[in-house]
Amino acid sequence: VKAWSFIDKVGLANLQEVERPMPKAGIGQVVMRMKAVALNYRDLAIARGHYHVGVEAPLVPLADGIGEVVAIGNGITRLAIGDLACPTYMPGWIDGPVTPRKALRRLGGPNDGTATEYFVAHEDELVIAPKSLTAAEAATLPIAAVTAWHSLFEKASVPPGSTVLVNGSGGVSTAAIQLARAAGARVIAVTRRAAHAEGLHIAGAHHVVVYADADWTIEVRRLARDGVDTVVDVAAGPGIAQLLSVLLPGGDLHLIGYAAGTAAEFDMFDAIRRAITIHFGSGGSRSSFEALVRAIDVNTIKPIIGRRLPIADLVAGYALLAAGGQVGKIVLEFAD
Amino acid sequence: VKAWSFIDKVGLANLQEVERPMPKAGIGQVVMRMKAVALNYRDLAIARGHYHVGVEAPLVPLADGIGEVVAIGNGITRLAIGDLACPTYMPGWIDGPVTPRKALRRLGGPNDGTATEYFVAHEDELVIAPKSLTAAEAATLPIAAVTAWHSLFEKASVPPGSTVLVNGSGGVSTAAIQLARAAGARVIAVTRRAAHAEGLHIAGAHHVVVYADADWTIEVRRLARDGVDTVVDVAAGPGIAQLLSVLLPGGDLHLIGYAAGTAAEFDMFDAIRRAITIHFGSGGSRSSFEALVRAIDVNTIKPIIGRRLPIADLVAGYALLAAGGQVGKIVLEFAD
Amino acid sequence: VKAWSFIDKVGLANLQEVERPMPKAGIGQVVMRMKAVALNYRDLAIARGHYHVGVEAPLVPLADGIGEVVAIGNGITRLAIGDLACPTYMPGWIDGPVTPRKALRRLGGPNDGTATEYFVAHEDELVIAPKSLTAAEAATLPIAAVTAWHSLFEKASVPPGSTVLVNGSGGVSTAAIQLARAAGARVIAVTRRAAHAEGLHIAGAHHVVVYADADWTIEVRRLARDGVDTVVDVAAGPGIAQLLSVLLPGGDLHLIGYAAGTAAEFDMFDAIRRAITIHFGSGGSRSSFEALVRAIDVNTIKPIIGRRLPIADLVAGYALLAAGGQVGKIVLEFAD
Amino acid sequence: VKAWSFIDKVGLANLQEVERPMPKAGIGQVVMRMKAVALNYRDLAIARGHYHVGVEAPLVPLADGIGEVVAIGNGITRLAIGDLACPTYMPGWIDGPVTPRKALRRLGGPNDGTATEYFVAHEDELVIAPKSLTAAEAATLPIAAVTAWHSLFEKASVPPGSTVLVNGSGGVSTAAIQLARAAGARVIAVTRRAAHAEGLHIAGAHHVVVYADADWTIEVRRLARDGVDTVVDVAAGPGIAQLLSVLLPGGDLHLIGYAAGTAAEFDMFDAIRRAITIHFGSGGSRSSFEALVRAIDVNTIKPIIGRRLPIADLVAGYALLAAGGQVGKIVLEFAD
Repeated sequence: VKAWSFIDKVGLANLQEVERPMPKAGIGQVVMRMKAVALNYRDLAIARGHYHVGVEAPLVPLADGIGEVVAIGNGITRLAIGDLACPTYMPGWIDGPVTPRKALRRLGGPNDGTATEYFVAHEDELVIAPKSLTAAEAATLPIAAVTAWHSLFEKASVPPGSTVLVNGSGGVSTAAIQLARAAGARVIAVTRRAAHAEGLHIAGAHHVVVYADADWTIEVRRLARDGVDTVVDVAAGPGIAQLLSVLLPGGDLHLIGYAAGTAAEFDMFDAIRRAITIHFGSGGSRSSFEALVRAIDVNTIKPIIGRRLPIADLVAGYALLAAGGQVGKIVLEFAD
Repeated sequence: VKAWSFIDKVGLANLQEVERPMPKAGIGQVVMRMKAVALNYRDLAIARGHYHVGVEAPLVPLADGIGEVVAIGNGITRLAIGDLACPTYMPGWIDGPVTPRKALRRLGGPNDGTATEYFVAHEDELVIAPKSLTAAEAATLPIAAVTAWHSLFEKASVPPGSTVLVNGSGGVSTAAIQLARAAGARVIAVTRRAAHAEGLHIAGAHHVVVYADADWTIEVRRLARDGVDTVVDVAAGPGIAQLLSVLLPGGDLHLIGYAAGTAAEFDMFDAIRRAITIHFGSGGSRSSFEALVRAIDVNTIKPIIGRRLPIADLVAGYALLAAGGQVGKIVLEFAD
Repeated sequence: VKAWSFIDKVGLANLQEVERPMPKAGIGQVVMRMKAVALNYRDLAIARGHYHVGVEAPLVPLADGIGEVVAIGNGITRLAIGDLACPTYMPGWIDGPVTPRKALRRLGGPNDGTATEYFVAHEDELVIAPKSLTAAEAATLPIAAVTAWHSLFEKASVPPGSTVLVNGSGGVSTAAIQLARAAGARVIAVTRRAAHAEGLHIAGAHHVVVYADADWTIEVRRLARDGVDTVVDVAAGPGIAQLLSVLLPGGDLHLIGYAAGTAAEFDMFDAIRRAITIHFGSGGSRSSFEALVRAIDVNTIKPIIGRRLPIADLVAGYALLAAGGQVGKIVLEFAD
Repeated sequence: VKAWSFIDKVGLANLQEVERPMPKAGIGQVVMRMKAVALNYRDLAIARGHYHVGVEAPLVPLADGIGEVVAIGNGITRLAIGDLACPTYMPGWIDGPVTPRKALRRLGGPNDGTATEYFVAHEDELVIAPKSLTAAEAATLPIAAVTAWHSLFEKASVPPGSTVLVNGSGGVSTAAIQLARAAGARVIAVTRRAAHAEGLHIAGAHHVVVYADADWTIEVRRLARDGVDTVVDVAAGPGIAQLLSVLLPGGDLHLIGYAAGTAAEFDMFDAIRRAITIHFGSGGSRSSFEALVRAIDVNTIKPIIGRRLPIADLVAGYALLAAGGQVGKIVLEFAD
């Protein structure tokens, strides 16, 4: 069966289609025929060699995806042949808060990921996809939407009527907009690209503020009166100081991406005076994913897909992600 | 100015219109001309003499209401002439968890309440009404909606996609339905009266189950698959056992009323095995009320009014509440 | 190898020593030679036939215990030969909040328990015992101390300086006293038996109040000034009303036993007015158990053992538990 | 009466003894004759002009202190003549989470502080001192110990057996060591100065690690096995990267001081991968202070006083604080 793999060395130049043996379902395992996978910024960082934690070739990339169960081993109780299911990004994190042991394995690096025609996993490491979504939509959930869910509702909370500011227009950002809106929050989206404003409104933002030469924080403060309760940021980098400046005293900043750089550059005196909490993190448990599935089905949330490509165009997908021209996720589909 | 008061002895027979001097705004105080007030089950219990905690005549009843600020004392910073504001049911409870000291004063008994043409209060004991509501709608908020808010979002939480079962069709119940729905939950309403089903659907319930000879818990379990995450109950009494039986292990039961009796009659062994938490309580802080106001404005939640009467029909209002024939709140309006 | 089992029918008259084949360690499993086991009230309720949830003969009773790892299967990563480890009461509950699926299996009924010379389990269902305890002491932990831990520190919290009232003198009660004391709380123990006062002081209670004809709640209120923050109760039954009466508004009642009866008999009106939360429950996750182990080692907490008997006297142990004459746990030891 | 005040311009050179009229107790107010005050790093930052948020001369510095109530106005219910009480650092923060409005007023800048023979305040802005402390000990509590309390027990939690690392040897650090120890945690203190090790042990640290050329994080990781659950840091500056590196995944970093600089300089990628939460903040509510008082009395915690001076040596006290040669707080006493 076909898979995509970094050969010899991790890097886009070495990402090739390879032939591998058909996997078998051991005790407690299931085999899925993959229907779609999706890209995350993390996949790009790994492919560029910017992610130096135990990631080595050969490696099958990607963590997002969905497949149809085509074979089951002995002792399977949670799934059946024909079910559509998604893998979990950190397969060892079933429930509760993260621990070193739970965070060890990660799909797409250091462990083999979802860019493969057939994917085998223990049944405990899979989640049945939301009934209300297409396969392509559900393929986008494992990293971005689970991260947004875990941050907004499990690390902190988003009571109805609170104000959530979301930075960016990628998969985590659009998932955060949709989930915060479903929870009854007032949602302000901030983006560098005027072309993304319409997409962010469609995702559910009440207000979209486009960066310009002028200080965007003035407009946010006008919209939010005193300030915002919660910020979801995927960029990190030098913009943090501005994000902190629009938070209310006691507010929460979720820092779940580093697209603009990893160096923290902000003044801690102001953060102390205003009693800010910064929640760093990425991913969530299988239990978080299952709660997300319920939220999607009850609120008919449709993940935003920016581009759909055949899996054969995987390398082109990475380039699109790097260019950042779309709102939402880039999905790569397998032929039926 | 006119007020309504229990003369000599608390009891509906002694509830009379009385003349009282026009109140003055002392330092930090404001005077409001009341526009509307609303009834709670608690008011009925007090009028019937079923509430024996320091409640004595003479007493101006009721805690719900809204007024227009017509005079302000020195040092006022939170309100201005012309503002529409609601009193807080427990004026001493500004913020944080309840304490004996904060819970001491309660409008409508033991302290004088809102059934008066002019109401004077310290500005710290008032909340500016939601901009998106009419005066009659906002008058319903201080007890029922604040109680529902504090229970659902501050004592526990209601993540999007969780299932909330609400029992009853009075003011707390319809507020709980609306708020849980705004928070993205799946909402099941349960009622004894088939005639209330439509009103509960309008309030936002996804499903309405009408009690019948058959066991209603079977239908709830069918709708909720395994069970529900959260129950909001205003009846107490013998029905608790059934409510507990539809809760998932680890579920939350909010017990915020006692319309069907105050004796706890259920089997604790089952509650222990299933790790249920019962949150008893009523009311919330001014800070809870302010958060509720934001939720109402952001989500354009319109409180359900079952009946509107002129304030002169106050005694008739109590009778309607006792009969329980309407969905939502009974509002009594003052002439302009 | 020897085990003890209810033959034909659950009941003390049918509890016999039986011979069973030596267990083998399958993939991921370990075999322990048991060194000690301990009794819980639950074991007594099961033996008396008062626990009707899927418990059927033949059944090896008990859930508490400790053993030495004597054989390991393939793939073991958490344990090694020679380790002293305790089983977990609900083996499926590894982490996070309880769910129906996690609560399915329970040692000592419906699943075979620890009253056996050799016990086999998946390594995920075992916890390495605290280094600071003897085997007999560690044998007492799986139900009573884990329940006390989960209730006090995971369902609610016990900040230093808060007041905790503990009812009873059995294993849960003494563990709750020790843990609350280690957390810096002020601890008041309440007991029916004057003879237990000294033992409860030794466990760490600052004050011991002995029930008498007079109302013990008066003395508790005198000691605690306004009231107590937290109550841990193992009796349930008619005493709940008194326990509720000494709780501060907003206080927590942990109801984790039913020695005095399972019918809830208290007035809900008062619980509503005072915003009480009742946490029902029993047991905790493996993760809770591991946190408990750290707390024991850091604070050198020594579980209170009321009686030590050889395992051959198992039936006599049940009788001692029923009589309730000791403070702390009844431990049954295996010969070396 | 005498007071100390920055004349014309904030700065140590302008700190002078001044004569002011004896304050009177208005409605709801009390006058205290001050017995002792204490210094915080914040006072030094203000005196050096490093704190540019609305702080202007003339200004009476300091926020810590204790006084004896010598006069009361009308309507006082919480205090009596002769009571020993401490002011609250942010007088508007009575309860609940911080808000812009609650954080507006701060003693010692922008509002007049405690360096005065007679201090007048609303009774709601005072806390009765712990019975178990001397006046000098209680004078140290309002900023440092309240900050440590609010951080450890209200923003996050410190279950018994968890590991807490505390950086520094000033007032916040020694309070954090004492409180974490009282809560049953394992406490590791880290200091640059070998001479402080003994004092930190006396405060209650299980282990003291002294910085040296070698990487201190190696020793901390050896002591804590995998890492620590909680870090309390008062230095900020470039050391944050090392503090983050010893935290367990999911761990909490409380950043409540900036003695080593205010620029955040750490790698966010690692913080994201390890799901760290950083809680910035300072101070706590009156309700936090009252809970702290209970914890102190129950656990007989004695605040660590590094130096005691007469109030006339106030300027010398600032110099001692800047030099950092002592463990614990610098207290300035008034003559009886």
